[in-house]
Amino acid sequence: METIEQRLDRLEREVALQRDEIQIRQLIASYSPKVDTSDRLERSRLLAELWTEDGVYDIGGIARVEGREAIAQVFVGMHFEQVREGVCHVMGLPFIRIDGDTALALNYSVVMRPDGAERFFPWRVSMNRWDLVRQGGKWLIRHRLNRLMTGEEETRAALRDIDAMAASADSFD
Amino acid sequence: METIEQRLDRLEREVALQRDEIQIRQLIASYSPKVDTSDRLERSRLLAELWTEDGVYDIGGIARVEGREAIAQVFVGMHFEQVREGVCHVMGLPFIRIDGDTALALNYSVVMRPDGAERFFPWRVSMNRWDLVRQGGKWLIRHRLNRLMTGEEETRAALRDIDAMAASADSFD
Amino acid sequence: METIEQRLDRLEREVALQRDEIQIRQLIASYSPKVDTSDRLERSRLLAELWTEDGVYDIGGIARVEGREAIAQVFVGMHFEQVREGVCHVMGLPFIRIDGDTALALNYSVVMRPDGAERFFPWRVSMNRWDLVRQGGKWLIRHRLNRLMTGEEETRAALRDIDAMAASADSFD
Repeated sequence: METIEQRLDRLEREVALQRDEIQIRQLIASYSPKVDTSDRLERSRLLAELWTEDGVYDIGGIARVEGREAIAQVFVGMHFEQVREGVCHVMGLPFIRIDGDTALALNYSVVMRPDGAERFFPWRVSMNRWDLVRQGGKWLIRHRLNRLMTGEEETRAALRDIDAMAASADSFD
Repeated sequence: METIEQRLDRLEREVALQRDEIQIRQLIASYSPKVDTSDRLERSRLLAELWTEDGVYDIGGIARVEGREAIAQVFVGMHFEQVREGVCHVMGLPFIRIDGDTALALNYSVVMRPDGAERFFPWRVSMNRWDLVRQGGKWLIRHRLNRLMTGEEETRAALRDIDAMAASADSFD
Repeated sequence: METIEQRLDRLEREVALQRDEIQIRQLIASYSPKVDTSDRLERSRLLAELWTEDGVYDIGGIARVEGREAIAQVFVGMHFEQVREGVCHVMGLPFIRIDGDTALALNYSVVMRPDGAERFFPWRVSMNRWDLVRQGGKWLIRHRLNRLMTGEEETRAALRDIDAMAASADSFD
């Protein structure tokens, strides 16, 4: 028979874990409006603050950049122009695994762009593996792997991380 | 050292906030099947009940309507026909900020339509800013701003709300 | 005035319900990386473990299969080839209703495929009704109805389940 103390302890741990899940989802959800308003360096620097100081953004077919300033700079040029034409980073449902102060999330992103007057087209459809860490009470991106879903074995290997993420003693099992 | 009373109070506030987050997500998620089955006024009136009595739906490039009956009427005609051809309002991950009995959410929506026999096409790709209020224990839409992602400065200005939503003492920070 | 015991009981019930909501979302989110790495029977058998032993997958325009082995076999051939070309099952926001050890979820899925070098196209855009059950502490799929969003009345009838799911004493109301 559990004491009141033990029940409170268990509830507090569980509620904290569920709050982590919300915060991580919010982090991923916040990326979309932040990137789609990054039309100048001042704004891509704000976006880069979603990463840790020495965070990595490994963007399939584009670049692998390290550190906030390098991440901010990777948007200069092509991305800034796309923002002015309209570009929309739609985030799919993430699968999240939390281990204390670190977490992994897998999701897809679909970058939509306007195609003349009446339609849009899916430009980049990618998988993302978000390697996250809590620093100063805030979840940040330590490493984001982004790969186009064009059938490469390396990409499938990263997606197969779902097996370990879902099968082992899961944070929500 | 917190008393049992204080720990229970804190847990109850936190759990209520997390329940709000779920209810707001459910509200946004429920929009999709409700709109995509709105093939007659009886059904678009049900859909309009997601808004407050005097709620506003400001639909980019289409209309700005106010009040449940006007919202229900905006679907008459073109939308009813699209439902019979197949139309699919896919909702992206929302970013949600809750302040007591009001809340703001930002997300993208992608309206897919069948393109002949074998494919679909993204027709409208929009940002949505949902201004929500709790009335009688239920979250409702007070104002929904919807704008196509075609690069207008007004649209980016609305999306930049993410800065204040994410940066200030956040409901989940 | 509630006793401490009563407040703890209520919190435990509520937190367990919110955990169910997370686990069901994780189940749906896990489908994507599992199906998009199913390039051989060994992997589609892992995917099929998301269903109960006698689970049903009713795939619009493709097949209705029953039992894990039949579900695993339905991916042989066309799907295995698509995985090698790149295929991406993007999951939209689910609406979830939980009743004890059973649950219903409604969401959309968009299957994206690469279209030559520079773009992707939405191949199948479908509604999904997930009929779920908890077995041995784990949520599994008892029946998944998948239908292309091409305007059939049967499909709209399934989507209209949202009315009962959202209106009746809801699990999160």
